[in-house]
Amino acid sequence: MRILLDVMGGDLPSRELVKGGIIAGRRHGLNILFVGDQKTIQEALSEHNEREGDRFSILPASQTVGMDEPPVQAVRGKRDSSLIKGLIALREGEADAFVSPGNTGAVVVGSIFTLGRIAGITRPGILASIPTVSGREILVIDVGANVDCAPKHLVHFALMGASYARDVLEIPHPKIGLLNIGTEKSKGNKLNYRAFEILESSPLPFAGNIEAHHLLTGRPVDVVVCDGFVGNVFIKALEEGSAVVTGLIKGSIQKSFRGKLGGLLLRPMLTSLRERISSRRLGGAPLLGVNGVVVIAHGRSDAEAIEGAIIVASRAADADLNKQLERGISGWSKNGG
Amino acid sequence: MRILLDVMGGDLPSRELVKGGIIAGRRHGLNILFVGDQKTIQEALSEHNEREGDRFSILPASQTVGMDEPPVQAVRGKRDSSLIKGLIALREGEADAFVSPGNTGAVVVGSIFTLGRIAGITRPGILASIPTVSGREILVIDVGANVDCAPKHLVHFALMGASYARDVLEIPHPKIGLLNIGTEKSKGNKLNYRAFEILESSPLPFAGNIEAHHLLTGRPVDVVVCDGFVGNVFIKALEEGSAVVTGLIKGSIQKSFRGKLGGLLLRPMLTSLRERISSRRLGGAPLLGVNGVVVIAHGRSDAEAIEGAIIVASRAADADLNKQLERGISGWSKNGG
Repeated sequence: MRILLDVMGGDLPSRELVKGGIIAGRRHGLNILFVGDQKTIQEALSEHNEREGDRFSILPASQTVGMDEPPVQAVRGKRDSSLIKGLIALREGEADAFVSPGNTGAVVVGSIFTLGRIAGITRPGILASIPTVSGREILVIDVGANVDCAPKHLVHFALMGASYARDVLEIPHPKIGLLNIGTEKSKGNKLNYRAFEILESSPLPFAGNIEAHHLLTGRPVDVVVCDGFVGNVFIKALEEGSAVVTGLIKGSIQKSFRGKLGGLLLRPMLTSLRERISSRRLGGAPLLGVNGVVVIAHGRSDAEAIEGAIIVASRAADADLNKQLERGISGWSKNGG
Repeated sequence: MRILLDVMGGDLPSRELVKGGIIAGRRHGLNILFVGDQKTIQEALSEHNEREGDRFSILPASQTVGMDEPPVQAVRGKRDSSLIKGLIALREGEADAFVSPGNTGAVVVGSIFTLGRIAGITRPGILASIPTVSGREILVIDVGANVDCAPKHLVHFALMGASYARDVLEIPHPKIGLLNIGTEKSKGNKLNYRAFEILESSPLPFAGNIEAHHLLTGRPVDVVVCDGFVGNVFIKALEEGSAVVTGLIKGSIQKSFRGKLGGLLLRPMLTSLRERISSRRLGGAPLLGVNGVVVIAHGRSDAEAIEGAIIVASRAADADLNKQLERGISGWSKNGG
C-alpha cells in the first residue's frame, strides 16, 4: 500500500511532516509518496538515513496552498501545488490514499473537483472520531466541510456515517443520532426538524435527537450527524472544555507543596489522560463522499499526528472505503440495508 | 427588592426550590414571592421555620408547564400556571424580577407574550455567563432562545450583550466576538458572513470572528455572539468536555494505591475545581430583550442553583437592566455609544 502525504500545507515545517511519514512507513510497513518541494524532502529523508526508493518516494510540487486562501481560488489557480498534484496522483492510481494537514476548505474543494463524488452523494462530509469515557470512539459527521446544509445533506451524512461505522469499523448495527438542543422531535431548528422527519421514515438505524452533553460520557449512539458549522463548533468546544479542566488542574498543582506531591503521584495518570484526549491521537478525519480515500489531518499536526492520520488512511484504503460506502448507501437507500 | 420564584416547572420537587428561595432571602436580604401550589409552599416554609409574611409570600398557581410541552400551546392554554401567573405579577409591578427553572421555550414565549419586547429588539436572547481560566467570566448570547436566526438578530444579540457587559457588569469597553469556525471574515456560513459585515461597519466594539477552542483558555473577548442553536450546542459541549476529563481522573484515581494517595492530596483542589465549573455556580441566565427582568435557571436546579439564579436576578434588577439596555442600544445605534 502506498500513501500520498502532502508535506507543504500544514502549520509545521515540511521536515516535521516528512518525519511523520518516515515513522509511519517504518512502523507499519507502508510506502509513502511525499508531495512537495523535492530538495526539502530529500534533505529530510537523509536526516533520517533514508533515501528515495520504493518505500519513500517523491512527487515534486512547487506551490503551497496557504491556510487562509479562499479554497476555490487556490484550487483553480495553483495547479502545481502539493494539494492538487497529490489529488491528481491519487486519481491516477499512483497511490491508495491521500493525507493532507492543509487548508480544510481547499482539500474539500480540490477533492470534489479532482476526484468527483460517489454516486448518491451531493456533499461530501468530514468524519471525526472522538474518544469517549468508555474507550470506544464516537463518530461525528460533518465537522466542517459544509456550513449551510439542507436536510438531504444531513441524511447523506447519516448514510455515509452508518456505512463507515458498519463496513470500515465493523460495528454490526451502528446507531445514528441527530445532534440537537433537546431530545423531542419538535426541538431545534428547521433544518433538524426536516432531517428528523426524513431519517425517521428511512431504513437507517436512527435513534432520534441527541444532546451534546451526554455524548462522551453516555455514548448513546455510534454516529452523530450534524451540519458542518455546528459540528465544527461542537468538536472545538469539547476540546476547549477538556483543556480548561486540565489547565486548571495544572495551575492548582503548582500552587502548594501538597498539590505538587499529589500531582507527582498522579503524573503517570495525567500523562496517559492527556495522550488519550489529545488531538494527536485522533490522527486524521476522512472526507467521505469523494471518489478516493482522502484524510484531513489537523493543521497543527506534528510527526506523531501525521503518523496517526496515515494509519487512518491506510485502514480506510484496506477496507476499500469507497466501494463499501457506495454499496452501503445503495443498500440502505433501496432495501433497508 | 422582591423576586418572584416559579417553584413548579423545574425537574426537582417544589420544596427543594422553595428551600433555595428561603436561603437566598435570608442570606441576601431579599423578599421572595413564591409562585406555585399554595399548600406545598406553606409546608416547605414551615419545614424551615418560616411562615408567610413580608419576606416570604405566596402567589397561588394551580397549573404546571411541563418540560416537554410545546411552548406556544402551553403559554396559551395554561393561564393559571406558575409561569404565566408569575410573569403577569412581574408585569403588574408586584416584584422586581422573575426566576424560573422551567421549560426554556415556554419561558421565552411567555415572556414575549406577557411582557413585550424592549424597543429595537425583535428577538430576545438568553445570555449565559461561563467561567474562564483567568477567573473572569465570558458572556455568550444566544444560548437557546432562537434557533433560526437572521443576521439582524445576531446584531441585536451583540447590542444587548455589549450593553449588559458595560452597564450591568461594568466592563468599561466590552469586546464583542462572533462565534465562527475560522477567524477570517470569509469563514463560516452565510448567516455569520452577513452578520460580520453589519457588525464591522457598526459602532459596536466588534473584534471579529472567534473560535470555540480559545474562548475559555484565552478569553479573547467579553461577549460571544451566536445563533441560539449553535450557542446551546457550544455550552453543552464545553460542559461535556470538562465532564469527560473529571470523570476520567476520578476513574484513574480509584484504580491504584498511588492514584488514591495522589487523589487524597489533591481532593480540596478537585472539589474547588468542580465547584468552579459546575452549572450550579452559573446560577441563571437572563433573558435579554423583554420588558422585565427574567432569569432562566437550569431545569436540574437544586436549592443552591436557585440561590445563584436569584442573585443574578437581583443584580440585574439593581442595575435597572432594561433601562440600561434600552439606553445602551439606542446609544450605540445612534451615535456610536
